[in-house]
Amino acid sequence: MTDVLHRPGIPSVDTDRLAIDTIGFLAADMVEAADSGHPGMPMGAAPMAWTLWSRHLRHDPAAPDWADRDRFVLSAGHGSALLYGLLHMFGYDLPVEELRNFRQLGSRTPGHPEYGETPGVECTTGPLGQGLAMAVGMALAERMTHARYPELTDHHTYAIVGDGCLMEGISHEAASLAGHLGLGRLVVLWDDNDITIDGGVGRSCSDDQLARFAAYGWHTASVADGTDVEAIDQALTRAKADPRPSFIAVRTVIGHGVPGVEGTSKAHGSPLGEELLARTKELAGWDHPPFSVPEPVRTVCAGLAEAGAQAHATWEARFDVFEGEHAEAAAEFRRTQGRVLPAGLGTALDGTVGDAARATRQSSQACLTAARAVLPELVGGSADLAGSTGTEYGAPVTRDDYSRSAIAFGIREFGMAAVLNGMSLHGGYRVFGSTFLVFADYLRPALRLSALMRQPVVYVFTHDSIAVGEDGPTHQPIGHIESLRVIPGLQVLRPSDDAETAVAWRLALERTDGPTALILSRQPVPQLRGAGFEVDGPVAVEIVATGSEVSLAASVAAALRTEGYGVRVVSPLDRGRYTPDASATTVSIEAGSTSGWAGLVDVAIGIDEFGASGPGGEVMAHHGFTTDAVLARVRRHLDRGT
Amino acid sequence: MTDVLHRPGIPSVDTDRLAIDTIGFLAADMVEAADSGHPGMPMGAAPMAWTLWSRHLRHDPAAPDWADRDRFVLSAGHGSALLYGLLHMFGYDLPVEELRNFRQLGSRTPGHPEYGETPGVECTTGPLGQGLAMAVGMALAERMTHARYPELTDHHTYAIVGDGCLMEGISHEAASLAGHLGLGRLVVLWDDNDITIDGGVGRSCSDDQLARFAAYGWHTASVADGTDVEAIDQALTRAKADPRPSFIAVRTVIGHGVPGVEGTSKAHGSPLGEELLARTKELAGWDHPPFSVPEPVRTVCAGLAEAGAQAHATWEARFDVFEGEHAEAAAEFRRTQGRVLPAGLGTALDGTVGDAARATRQSSQACLTAARAVLPELVGGSADLAGSTGTEYGAPVTRDDYSRSAIAFGIREFGMAAVLNGMSLHGGYRVFGSTFLVFADYLRPALRLSALMRQPVVYVFTHDSIAVGEDGPTHQPIGHIESLRVIPGLQVLRPSDDAETAVAWRLALERTDGPTALILSRQPVPQLRGAGFEVDGPVAVEIVATGSEVSLAASVAAALRTEGYGVRVVSPLDRGRYTPDASATTVSIEAGSTSGWAGLVDVAIGIDEFGASGPGGEVMAHHGFTTDAVLARVRRHLDRGT
Repeated sequence: MTDVLHRPGIPSVDTDRLAIDTIGFLAADMVEAADSGHPGMPMGAAPMAWTLWSRHLRHDPAAPDWADRDRFVLSAGHGSALLYGLLHMFGYDLPVEELRNFRQLGSRTPGHPEYGETPGVECTTGPLGQGLAMAVGMALAERMTHARYPELTDHHTYAIVGDGCLMEGISHEAASLAGHLGLGRLVVLWDDNDITIDGGVGRSCSDDQLARFAAYGWHTASVADGTDVEAIDQALTRAKADPRPSFIAVRTVIGHGVPGVEGTSKAHGSPLGEELLARTKELAGWDHPPFSVPEPVRTVCAGLAEAGAQAHATWEARFDVFEGEHAEAAAEFRRTQGRVLPAGLGTALDGTVGDAARATRQSSQACLTAARAVLPELVGGSADLAGSTGTEYGAPVTRDDYSRSAIAFGIREFGMAAVLNGMSLHGGYRVFGSTFLVFADYLRPALRLSALMRQPVVYVFTHDSIAVGEDGPTHQPIGHIESLRVIPGLQVLRPSDDAETAVAWRLALERTDGPTALILSRQPVPQLRGAGFEVDGPVAVEIVATGSEVSLAASVAAALRTEGYGVRVVSPLDRGRYTPDASATTVSIEAGSTSGWAGLVDVAIGIDEFGASGPGGEVMAHHGFTTDAVLARVRRHLDRGT
Repeated sequence: MTDVLHRPGIPSVDTDRLAIDTIGFLAADMVEAADSGHPGMPMGAAPMAWTLWSRHLRHDPAAPDWADRDRFVLSAGHGSALLYGLLHMFGYDLPVEELRNFRQLGSRTPGHPEYGETPGVECTTGPLGQGLAMAVGMALAERMTHARYPELTDHHTYAIVGDGCLMEGISHEAASLAGHLGLGRLVVLWDDNDITIDGGVGRSCSDDQLARFAAYGWHTASVADGTDVEAIDQALTRAKADPRPSFIAVRTVIGHGVPGVEGTSKAHGSPLGEELLARTKELAGWDHPPFSVPEPVRTVCAGLAEAGAQAHATWEARFDVFEGEHAEAAAEFRRTQGRVLPAGLGTALDGTVGDAARATRQSSQACLTAARAVLPELVGGSADLAGSTGTEYGAPVTRDDYSRSAIAFGIREFGMAAVLNGMSLHGGYRVFGSTFLVFADYLRPALRLSALMRQPVVYVFTHDSIAVGEDGPTHQPIGHIESLRVIPGLQVLRPSDDAETAVAWRLALERTDGPTALILSRQPVPQLRGAGFEVDGPVAVEIVATGSEVSLAASVAAALRTEGYGVRVVSPLDRGRYTPDASATTVSIEAGSTSGWAGLVDVAIGIDEFGASGPGGEVMAHHGFTTDAVLARVRRHLDRGT
């Protein structure tokens, strides 16, 4: 259908050439004006990008949020000028002034593509490999949405990746998962220019990439001449017809057409310079002023944009028919696309609160099960720790059944988080992923992008302290909670019982503009529900604690009260919400790094060294997490004060 | 040579069977006694481990530090009981009491193998995939040492990896690098048991692993029956003869021999229980008490240990001959193995200090070049940012020339760090690796292991703040310095000029028991050398800053002094060394997260939100890093105080 739509309007050979030069020179002009950026990638990859955008990509520049558009991800994000040029040429809301302001403060054309800053940019890229993984997430979301709304969803996801993307480990995790799940609507173009920043790819890599992707179960193909529009077009057509995800190696020359520089790492990351750019344009027979889009190219792009608008209109008509026949399903589609929560979530979560002591990972499992019943768009899974982390969610999605809600991510934390980002960006879903807190390190680069892109991904991190015990220091987080708190825009919540866990899940799901990390215990905790936290009369000591240490705080408070002190216990859930009582002696207890607490309280009790292997209670005691040990610390401070 | 040595003493079929049962039941007994751990992996992998240790591994249990021993890495670290059993059986200093104390506080048998805790444990494993990458580092160090000391170095590196190791992205980075560098003395056995924690591997992975490793340039083989000692032995022999790194898939059954449980994920991570273990032993015809090593096995292991001691003695004799002929080289070998620095390092580093403003990444490049001249054991490289990070170090090691000192790690940060760990553990080298600070996130799990294993790896992190400018928020670290400071045992140094950078390198290299992160600027800084930091008379205001913000602190101090305040500037290099002046108003300036400073000073100036794309100076100004903006903040605080 896509092809039928576009075939009649395909440009002539001459217009192709002109359009490709337009992309390359727009990029070179941007980098030149900014005196900063990467001209080589856009100049080499312009033919494949043009072939894709002129012959295959189904999109409506006037409606960049159209749910059934094809997705395009520039995983090699340093080539941002390529993307900005295309968006400008096709009539997205990106006027030429924005291109002239490339890489300037306040522009819509930052150094790397930033989701939310530029219409048509589907995700933030630049940290290598993650674009590929987000494309996998988008392609998975597409198939899952197709299973739920076959009438409304049928699009492709395309990505352009560079050598750096393919060297990064996340490319393995993402490509392996895509092959396993048979994501046939994913088409990846490899800008095979054989150059990295430090020199030729051959300095550090000898992979047979086609064989590698074939080993993941992908369809593979190669285009020997990356300027051959016809060959690229045919490869794309075959890729779309193949039921497997597709990987197309396109042999290109970085900085194509720049005399003396093309094909070398010199073309990668610096402006060409006025003189060299002028000579390059001369050699190409390009006699337009900087930032030009020649009239024939303008016309062709307008025609393609119009065809995209038509496709969009056809889809809207189809949606109307669907709505007429399935009003409820259509409303649900709209609701989930709009990230609007249904009624009843709060009640469902409140229903999970019980009286028996249990680990907050178990409380969280109850919340997830309750939320699922009212929130069909809530999907997710674990990096092979569903049972341990309390994220059992039914049978997982397979290539034969995308209608399920659980995803078995495998032992691929980083891939999981990036795929979740892609799914969230695709729209229609609220997503979660789980692992042990100590392995938050493995997925941290993608979690940071969740925050930067303001995606409401929910991270479930369990086994949150040295209390994990026998598995030992490799599995015992120390600085991990603190290292999450320093990521801007990440909501970090550490609940202490069923009630707080239910609140934490509600806060995580009510949030639509940023990620949340839930920090949960392996070991059981009592159901305190704030009982005895407040005290009548003046407060001499305020003990603030989170998670599993709140019960320890309560126990210390009880002991201090017998000594006549007025003691308040505070469980802030999110440390950012805690304001110390300036008139009291303040004490924090958290089984993790103290560095972020030291500025808030008088006595910060935590652990700033690695833990040890032993039964959890013994390890906690060994590191001073007992009522007596904490009491001694607090008394020492109080005695000093008198 | 190894083979000739061991062949005469190979055990009989009956003894093999007995030894394999011994390994399996020792592991099961340990897990049972601890009521915690992973019995399934050891029971399934015992035959391959026994075959390797009885027919191929060249080691001297009485001398676990022998430089030319073969290395054995249990990458599937949750199977620690397998390794402890072997070490005990072969006579390492690990008596049966330690096996009985498996996973107990203070034992030498922690839940996962911990380097430094147990003789014979070559590295800390458990965080999946990293063991494989450390084995690659050990194998690379072996080849590099062989190139330098062919008479003294000729050993193999073996690793057992699980499905989890192979799903992790780091397996891609490490295997790709090993293939590229042609590390033929590396042999990896894959415990192909088809089971992960959550169920069958088929839930989440369909990779053709042999094809994948072949795509990296590895020799591959498979053993269909993982209990077939003869077949495993032959595969190992062929692997050692092949010039490529080798990957051998060994089909096993997790929890082999346990009725009703073998071959399922139930065998993975829980004790079998007394009754089931008893039935398993009965079915195997095993009638020894718990923790037994039957006499025939004891005898065979003693013989193998004796053969290893002989091999070691032969090597020592060879070393004596070498020392007689090459006294200087032998002394150098001893010195580097002992991590002893040569004279002249301090002088060499001091010689890099100049007067011209430059980026501390450039100061660091000068230090590296100077250090290299006196420290031949200093080797390392970059994750494809050698030029940008100031870590140019000559032509890199190739499969045809291992005598070089530079390593082109490719765009593989995590792999780089884990390989550096492996090289450091191997011995004979001081190692460094570089990338942008923002990509410290990509390698964080391995950096944490550097700290846990107390390896003196030097991490060079440049482009250390929003001052990187145009590349935008994806490339601008915010919480990164703080997130490194919360890793126990990691020395974090942020120098402000040439002189401090030279000190930082000296501190990094003088440290032998832990890693260091050098945090360096992209932009030029003036050569302050502490000029004007101190003030005569009483100190009213103390401004503490690090790195590129020290010159800003000096400028603010100068302005405040004109207003009559006594102002001291402190550049602590390592924040841990800073003690605030209790009688002064204290102000910190660091272009990063403020959370760790807030506990130390009255006014913490930093940045707790994401940056923006624009020229570096403008971005800094936008976020308040100008003399005027800082002055205004300080004045506001001082005014409030009066």
